[in-house]
Formats: sequence, structure tokens, C-alpha cells
Amino acid sequence: MFHLVCSHLLLHKSPRSYLPTMSGITTLCQPHQKRNLSFDGIFPALPTPFDKDENIDFDALKKNLARWEKIPFKGYVVGGSYSEAPSVDPGERLAIVKETRKVISDSKILIGGSSCLSTKATCELSKSMGEAGADAVMVLLPFYYRTRLNEEAIIDHFTTVANASPVPLVIYNNPLTTGVDIPISAYIKLAAHPNIVAVKDGDVSKLSGTKLATHEHNFAVLSNGAGFLVSAMVAGAVGSINSLGAILGETVCEVHQLVSSGQYDEAIQLQMKLVEPDLMLRMTGHSVPGMKAAMDILGYYGGPVRKPLQPLNNSDREKVKECLKKSGFI
Amino acid sequence: MFHLVCSHLLLHKSPRSYLPTMSGITTLCQPHQKRNLSFDGIFPALPTPFDKDENIDFDALKKNLARWEKIPFKGYVVGGSYSEAPSVDPGERLAIVKETRKVISDSKILIGGSSCLSTKATCELSKSMGEAGADAVMVLLPFYYRTRLNEEAIIDHFTTVANASPVPLVIYNNPLTTGVDIPISAYIKLAAHPNIVAVKDGDVSKLSGTKLATHEHNFAVLSNGAGFLVSAMVAGAVGSINSLGAILGETVCEVHQLVSSGQYDEAIQLQMKLVEPDLMLRMTGHSVPGMKAAMDILGYYGGPVRKPLQPLNNSDREKVKECLKKSGFI
Amino acid sequence: MFHLVCSHLLLHKSPRSYLPTMSGITTLCQPHQKRNLSFDGIFPALPTPFDKDENIDFDALKKNLARWEKIPFKGYVVGGSYSEAPSVDPGERLAIVKETRKVISDSKILIGGSSCLSTKATCELSKSMGEAGADAVMVLLPFYYRTRLNEEAIIDHFTTVANASPVPLVIYNNPLTTGVDIPISAYIKLAAHPNIVAVKDGDVSKLSGTKLATHEHNFAVLSNGAGFLVSAMVAGAVGSINSLGAILGETVCEVHQLVSSGQYDEAIQLQMKLVEPDLMLRMTGHSVPGMKAAMDILGYYGGPVRKPLQPLNNSDREKVKECLKKSGFI
Amino acid sequence: MFHLVCSHLLLHKSPRSYLPTMSGITTLCQPHQKRNLSFDGIFPALPTPFDKDENIDFDALKKNLARWEKIPFKGYVVGGSYSEAPSVDPGERLAIVKETRKVISDSKILIGGSSCLSTKATCELSKSMGEAGADAVMVLLPFYYRTRLNEEAIIDHFTTVANASPVPLVIYNNPLTTGVDIPISAYIKLAAHPNIVAVKDGDVSKLSGTKLATHEHNFAVLSNGAGFLVSAMVAGAVGSINSLGAILGETVCEVHQLVSSGQYDEAIQLQMKLVEPDLMLRMTGHSVPGMKAAMDILGYYGGPVRKPLQPLNNSDREKVKECLKKSGFI
Repeated sequence: MFHLVCSHLLLHKSPRSYLPTMSGITTLCQPHQKRNLSFDGIFPALPTPFDKDENIDFDALKKNLARWEKIPFKGYVVGGSYSEAPSVDPGERLAIVKETRKVISDSKILIGGSSCLSTKATCELSKSMGEAGADAVMVLLPFYYRTRLNEEAIIDHFTTVANASPVPLVIYNNPLTTGVDIPISAYIKLAAHPNIVAVKDGDVSKLSGTKLATHEHNFAVLSNGAGFLVSAMVAGAVGSINSLGAILGETVCEVHQLVSSGQYDEAIQLQMKLVEPDLMLRMTGHSVPGMKAAMDILGYYGGPVRKPLQPLNNSDREKVKECLKKSGFI
Repeated sequence: MFHLVCSHLLLHKSPRSYLPTMSGITTLCQPHQKRNLSFDGIFPALPTPFDKDENIDFDALKKNLARWEKIPFKGYVVGGSYSEAPSVDPGERLAIVKETRKVISDSKILIGGSSCLSTKATCELSKSMGEAGADAVMVLLPFYYRTRLNEEAIIDHFTTVANASPVPLVIYNNPLTTGVDIPISAYIKLAAHPNIVAVKDGDVSKLSGTKLATHEHNFAVLSNGAGFLVSAMVAGAVGSINSLGAILGETVCEVHQLVSSGQYDEAIQLQMKLVEPDLMLRMTGHSVPGMKAAMDILGYYGGPVRKPLQPLNNSDREKVKECLKKSGFI
Repeated sequence: MFHLVCSHLLLHKSPRSYLPTMSGITTLCQPHQKRNLSFDGIFPALPTPFDKDENIDFDALKKNLARWEKIPFKGYVVGGSYSEAPSVDPGERLAIVKETRKVISDSKILIGGSSCLSTKATCELSKSMGEAGADAVMVLLPFYYRTRLNEEAIIDHFTTVANASPVPLVIYNNPLTTGVDIPISAYIKLAAHPNIVAVKDGDVSKLSGTKLATHEHNFAVLSNGAGFLVSAMVAGAVGSINSLGAILGETVCEVHQLVSSGQYDEAIQLQMKLVEPDLMLRMTGHSVPGMKAAMDILGYYGGPVRKPLQPLNNSDREKVKECLKKSGFI
Repeated sequence: MFHLVCSHLLLHKSPRSYLPTMSGITTLCQPHQKRNLSFDGIFPALPTPFDKDENIDFDALKKNLARWEKIPFKGYVVGGSYSEAPSVDPGERLAIVKETRKVISDSKILIGGSSCLSTKATCELSKSMGEAGADAVMVLLPFYYRTRLNEEAIIDHFTTVANASPVPLVIYNNPLTTGVDIPISAYIKLAAHPNIVAVKDGDVSKLSGTKLATHEHNFAVLSNGAGFLVSAMVAGAVGSINSLGAILGETVCEVHQLVSSGQYDEAIQLQMKLVEPDLMLRMTGHSVPGMKAAMDILGYYGGPVRKPLQPLNNSDREKVKECLKKSGFI
């Protein structure tokens, strides 16, 4: 796996600087190695199953994975927002990576969210993620001090983590949570780093603009939702990391396949089935509790959420059911 | 024209209520009349030309219009954000509608922005807009009291204006300016009103969701930008109201035509030329001053902005030029 | 009155440029003239009374004024947020100034809100306000293009209006509405302008900081609320422009008087009566509709609001009553 | 110490519910025990000293504490925003509590920030904080899922943590960071909990309103800044948790003492010295890096910050120096 090839290079940092204005960036891995990791497909953001005492239920995880493995996903993300990562401590997050790696096929790319609130902790967790079997890490801005996160601080954070990480880094932009929208200019600079390989964003204009400006860097732009997958792909996204994949993965993969093969009209039509479930999770604000409710309804293990999240009340749970019924999924 | 057909009906309001929870909504025009106004195309948001004393330069407007008339636009918007409408008083806005109507061909749909800070003033300006020759009015939320604008207040505002307006109403959502993002649920309710015919929004998920939920209402969803036009159209938009059309209209119309005829790959490729100019205007924040600078460069009359807007400095003006050059427009 | 002394100077503007980088601020009126206008007291923000058709009810205004004139206010503000100024057109605003000026005693300072969405329109309305009898104008940021309002644009706006206005200008900071919090550094620069005499802000730290940095400029800092009047005055405010004064003016003036005479403990105790009514209007969000409901309850004319504002429902109206009862006002 | 008295009671939870609408709240400690912890004074928020490798420098901490112990503080806060708590892992935070407890006098109240991103982790860290020697814990909202934090979720979080914590809980409201401003209604409900003893907030209106509504609960309201201490105290705050205390503690304590003894005019005058340093840290945005720079200048150990925070550049460091000089501290 890529991180094995790469990690020994940590001992032999090249002195050459990639970005003239950021003196501390050096080569961890050779640029051509970026090519080894393809993001051309669907990566569901996997929820973390808890039992009623809020402990991780690894059996439930395995059962869910067994079902997900039948869907032609490109890979998986664990430790993201929809995994309740902020409520799952680093040790637990690593255990999930290890257990997931055991169950899934070798061909699947496993991305581990390694975001922590400091750069230091994110570096450490990224190292451990690589050792635990993640093929890449996904990193959010450390948002606590968001009023201090100017472009220089943003670039320094991702560069420092990418330098420390034995596996490639995927930038995760989530302005709704962090309160900071990473500017395109930062993506363009970061794309030149040999160990930064992709960005996940939800703004189609930014996806196009980033694609256009980074085409020489083997840098992938990924959509953060599945309800507008066709829109994202015509804007330049090669794949998508999204929560909808974990519950309606077959359809999401089929839409991706249709666009990939140029069958736009069929893709547009099929995507319409995903629009309302996607809005339900994202805009109606059902979020993680809604996703877990949908999983329960569809025969996956959804189960409880960890506080401070609150479970859906019965009325909202009923709305989730109606939405899935109306869209033809039950 | 539609507003002539419609306006006499104001005398014969039907008593039937369309939306049970909104008792005041009555039929101005019969639902089938909505069909008379097609939004299937590009509507540039026309800037208001000022002379160096900040007075409106109608000669410059006519010269610009003469050039715009050679482009296959579906119609025009005057009195929007990119027209500096908040800085143009109602009398001036009406004069612009009248002058524009005289110059443009009859087949072009002329949309006049009639947004004011109160419902009352918006009703009055909407009436005058219809009399002045506008085929439709475009209405923003009255954003001063935004913390009070719950869904009920939002629906009441648009319904009251639509009841008063002799011409159909286009909802204009601009959360960046108003601080309120009109929810899809409001669009869906408002789409049932016989005199509300379209919405302009920039979120592709909302475009899809609105399209899906309002398909029985002859209600058009329109994109508010041109840099992601293909994305918006595959998400359900039939057309677009945008500032880019005023400077790069030929290309914007060509992208629309390509998507309309199913030539997606060609559309995607051509749209790439528009991505950076669009980002320049919207994300880099050059906004109206940047648009006017681009017009000057491209041989239109751009000219000064009205305060509180500030003109671009030379360095930013140079960036606009470079962007247009890099994208192949000069 | 001050504006008479000042206005003739408008005919003799120096041709030299007023603001190259702020160093160029020159005297429209001599600095010592600032001293003529004292803000040392309470200025209620007067609501605009409407009849049931949303027209201005001047009789109701006069009745209210007759009662307010019995309270030892320093002056009045018309045309502010609590006057529903955004929903009252410039002609109506001027008529209110004229009618108010006729009724109130000569010693009262009448401040007219002259905020419009463009600098040009604000200059024009400021001129008319002076002619109509206002002793000063109160000016908000033109908030539509708020993302473009950097410090330079902010300073340019206020300076341009102050240069044009025949009467002194009071800066009105309302970040909740405008989305822009005017920085202290802008206050400090603007305080040097001979025709800018005060600022109204709600942040006690900014009040202190401004007081400290502008002490040589005869520039008054004013609080924008009455529920924390003691806090604002110990932070440096000499007076306050607030909505609570219009309904509970006697108590607000008494608190001001107690602090002015050094009776802090008595002031603190009395202010406690105002805390809940103030929170009710501001934080509970009852805002203008709540203020008008309270006026109705207390024997003033409150009456309807103009749309897009919605009247309080009965339950909320009852809460306003309970709050006034609990605080000992009915 | 209080937490010893209290912790054994964990074995004997009373079944009676304090808040009818929140069924899960039970008595950990008897209500009268709230009285044992007085917040009537100044609590500096202590920065965490790092060496150049970003490791905690405990020797520097001890040297700083030796100096702070000469100032009549009521106690200390470690593990807050100005301690870079989000960048200091739980083990490190506990070590700081232990080391601090060893050095400071028994009479000082030691408050340990135990905020984590999940309720579960916050409960666990609160327990450990009590065991490590903290007299109270200070808890922020778990802000990652802020869009889901309605009043019910907020109350559930603080109640769950207060139930689990062996030592009393101080609510910490920091809307700038969390994006959620805890409403007064939540404070009022939470104040009834026997193990919730204080709130730290920066809005003087909210301080007054909370004081008024919770007076029967032995619940302290605390200011979160020192530059407006007099304003906060006249609004009802008995004390203050603030960063300025760590650098200019003598003056901050003196202002508190002057207000406490009714010498308002002297307090107002003295506080003026603190206004600019306070604005420098909070509004100018120098924040933690600015605080550490000021410490270096004043002879404390300030030292480096942990990433993602960036150190001040030389120009900003010079401004900090000028500010301290201008205010008479160097």
C-alpha cells in the first residue's frame, strides 16, 4: 500500500522547496506518487455505530460493512462529520480504521479523518492513521480559533500535517461547521504539495475553478454531497465523499457510473431520486440523527447518536420514512 | 404582452384561496397564464451606467443595449444587485425600464427589479414597473429586519407583492446580501401562486429540490450565475439571470444552447472559459466595480460606480484584464 | 440653532480635496461649534404611528409627543430602526421631522435618521433633514453591499455625508442589521471631522475605547440601549438613544440623572426595573411589534406595523403585558 | 476542599427532580453547598507556556504562578480559550491542574476547563479534573454540531456534565467561538441545578437579566473581560474570568476592589488604563499570541503558541509594546 512506500521517505526529506513563499515545505514523497491514489468514484462517509450506552458497536459496524462491500464503492471514509468524529476519541477512531481495514477488500481506498483541534494533534493522529491501515487522511481546519485562520495559517496547518503524514492528505472544507471557507487560492497553493492529493468541497464554482487551476498537479476535486452529483461532476469533480452513499449507495454509484460513461440524461433522471433524501439530511437539518434513522429503516444498523447530538423524535423519524418512501427507496 | 392580459384581471379577484394557511392569497391571473412567460434562456443583469457625477448616462445605456441586442438573450434584468439598484432611486429605475423597453426588440422579456425595504413600497414600484413596460418584476426579501423574517413573514411579503403586481413575480434569493436564505419550503408554497412564476437561486441542491417539488406549477428555477451554468441546468434550471452575461454574453448563450441540445461534453468544455471570470466577479469580490472594469476593457461602457461602492484600484483593474486575457476573451 | 450657523458655510466650500487619506479633513464648521450640541441625556427613538391602512397617523404622533414632552428628555430621534425608517419613504420621514419640530419645545434636540442605501441619497436626505428642522442627522452604513464595506469605504461614506449635511452627523452602528461592525479605528478617524459629533454603539468596550481615543475632539459616545444604561455611562457614554425611552421614559431619565449625580447604587437598583423590558424588546426579538404592543398597553398610541414586519400574536402580546407588570410598570 | 465534600455524594443520588421539564436532573450535592464557592473576585485565565518545540514548560508555569500568587486573585482558570485548551490534550490539561494546585495557596479557587467536543468526553474530563484538584470545572458548548444545538440540547449537555462532575460547573458562553449564543432562558433553567454555580458571559444585558432571574439560586454571573469590569459589575457581575488578569492582574484586582467598596468614580478612572490593552487582546484580534507577547514584555514567560495559532510578527509585537507603554504599564 501507498503509505508503506511512502513512510520510509520520511527519513530522507529532500531539501527543495515546492512553494517559494512557504519555506518549510519539503518533499515527503515524489510527485508522481500522487497518481497511485485514484478518487474516481464514490466514498461513503460511514457513521459510527453506538450501542445504547454510547459505546462503539463493532459487530454492527461489521454487519454494515458486509452490506456496503456489495456496492461498487471506490472506498470509504471513517472519522468524518457523519461519523460523529468530534465525539469519537482518537483511540476509538484508530480502532475503527483497523477493524474496517480487516473487513474490506484490498482494492478499496480507506480514508481516515484525522482532524483534531491543534496542528500537533492532527499530525500525530495522521501518523497513527497511516500505521493503522488508512490509505489517506482527511483533514478539516482546526476551527476553534477560526477568527485567527487567515490564508497563511490555513496553508501552514495543512502543509505541516501533510509533511508529517505517512499517507496522502485530502483537504476537507466544511464552512458550515468551521465558520471559515477555505479560499480557492489556498487550494491552488496546497495542490502543489506532493502529499496533498484532493479536496472535498460543496461549491460547484470552487470545484471548477480548482480543477482548472490545478490540472498540472494530479490533484482531485471531490464533491461533498450526492444529491447534486451530476452538477458536481460536470463542474469537474471526479468523485464524491458523502453521507448519502452509506444509505443509498447503489443509486449513488449508478449515477456516478452514468456520468462517467457520458449518459448525462439518464444520470440526471436517476439523480432526481436522490434529491429529497439529500435535502432531508443536509438542509432539513436531520443530519447524523436523520442518517441513522434512515439506516434503521433501510435495514442497516443506525442506532443511537452520542450527545450533544439528540435522537430524532418520532415525528421527524416518520418524516424520514416518508421521504424514503416518496423517493422510491422503500 | 403578458402584463396587459393580466392587469385588467386585478379588478376581478377570485375569492378562492390557493394556500389554506395563507388566507389572503387570491387568483390574479389564471394558472395557465403562467405559461406565457418563458425563462428558457439567458437574462443578463444589466449594470446602470453612470457619468463621472454619478448621474445615469442614458446614451451609454443605449450603446450597450445596441450591442447586447446582437446576442441571443432571452431577455434582460434591470434593477438588480449588479444594476446597483439599492443606489438607484425608484424614479430612476423606472426611467431605465422605459428607455430599455424602447430600444430592445418586442420578443425580449424585460424583468425589472422592484425590491424596496418595505412591502408597501415594493407593491407600488411593482405596479409602476408593469406600467413602465416590464414583463415581470424581480423581488428580493426586504432585508433590513432580517431577524424578523421567518417563513410566515417571507411568504406574506411575496404574496402581498404578487397580489399587487400587474406582471408576474420572480423570487430573488440572495442570502449573501439579505442574511436570510429563503427555504425550499417557502418556494414550494409560493410556486402555487398564479402570479409567481420563477425563482433565482444559486444553490444547485435547492434548484433540484424546487424543480422536483413544483413541477405541477409551471414554475421556473433559474440559476444566479453563469460560471456553473451546466451544473445548474443539469440540476433543473431552465435559464439563468447573471452578471457575466452582460460582459461575455455570446459565450454564456452558447453554453446554454449546447446544454439545451444535449451536447453536454461541449458545454462543459466551453464553460471552462467562463469559470475564472465568474470567480473574479463573485468570489474575488470584485463585484460591480469589477464588472464595470471588465466592460470598459471589452468595449462596453462600464464607467464609475455610485458610492458607497468604490472603484477598483489600478492593481485590481489589471487583474481583471489578466483574467479576461487568460480566459481568451481579449 | 446649530444648523443655521453652519449651513451658510456650505456656500463657501473650499475647492481643495477633502479626503486624500484622511489627513485632508478640513473644516466645514469650526471645531468649537461641535460644542453647541450636547448629547448629555436621553433620546428616545420614536416609533412611527400607522393607521390600519399603514398610513402615517399624524394625530397619534402628536398625542404621543404631548406625553413625551412631559418627560425630561434631551431630545428625540425620528427615522431610526425603531421608527421603521426603512419602511417609511424619505418624503414621509421629512414630514415627521416637520410635524415633530412644530410640537416639541425649542430646547429639545431633534435628530433625524437620514440613512439611505446609497451615499448620494443619504447626502440629499441629510440636506432636506436640516431644512426640515432636524438639529442633527443619524446615519447608518449603507448595508446592501456590506461585503464591500472595508474601513476605507466606511470612512468615505460618513465623510461624504458629513460634508454635505448642513447639520452635524451622528454615526449609528448597528451590526445586527448591517452585518458590519464599524471598527473603533474608523470612529477615531471620523471623530476628527468637524461635522461628525457622536456615535451610537452598544458595545461597552468600544464606548470606552472610543471615549479614550477621541477625548480631544468633542465627540460624544452614546449607548444604544437603556437596559444597561449604568454600564454604558460608567464606560463613558454621556447619553443614550434607545427605544425603551419611548415607552418607559420617566424611569430611563431618572437612571440617567442618578448616574450623572454620582448616585450609582440608586441607579443600579432602579435600572433593574428596566432590564426585563429591555431584554423583551431586544433579545426576545419582539422588536418594533413588541414596542408598539407595549405602547398600546401603556396608553400611548402604538398601533400596527408596516409589512414586512408582522404584528405580535396574542400570546406574545400577553407576554409583553406580563413583563411590564412584573417590572412594576402596570 | 469542596470537591472532597461533594464527590462521595455521587454514590447517593437523590431521586428528586429539580427541573420539572428535565426529568434526568438529580441532586449530586445539596443546594446549600453552592454557597461554599465564592466567585467574588478576579480569576485570570492562565496561558499555557510552551517551549520552542511546543511542549509544555512546567518550570515557566511555576515561575509565572509565583508572581501571580502575589496578586490578590480569588482564583485561577486553566484550560480555557486563552490557555489554548483546544490545542492541549486532556492528559496535559490534567497535569497543569495538578502542578498548579501544588503551587498555589489553598484559599485560591482553581477552575479547570473540561470542555471536549462530546458530552461523554466532557463528563470524563470533568471527573478527572475534580480528582486532579480542580475546585470547579468550566464548560463550553460542544460546538462542532452547532447547527443542532437548540435550547433542549444545550440544557441536556450542561445537565449531563453537571450530574457527572464531582465539582461544581461554571457555564462558559463564547459565541464568537462556538457560533451559538446561549440564551438567558437556558441560564435560568440551568441555575436551578445544584451543581451549576456560575456563568461567564460578556453581554452586560444578559448579565443583568440573569442576575435578576436567578437571584434565589445562589448563582454567580461573571464577566468575561476586564476592560469593562466596572460596567459588568454595575450590571450584576460579582467577579470576572479574563485574560487581562494574567498580564495586568494588580490593576484588574484594584478596579474590582474599588467597585466592591463603592468607589465608582475611582474605579472608572483606573479602568481607563485597562481599556486599550483589553481592546488590543480582544478586538484588534491579537488574542493568545498578543497575550503571550505582552507577557514576554512584562517579564512573565509568554513564549510560543501552538499551531494553528501563529506568533505575532515583529510589527504587531511592537504595537503590543506601544499599547502597554501608552497605558502606563511599562
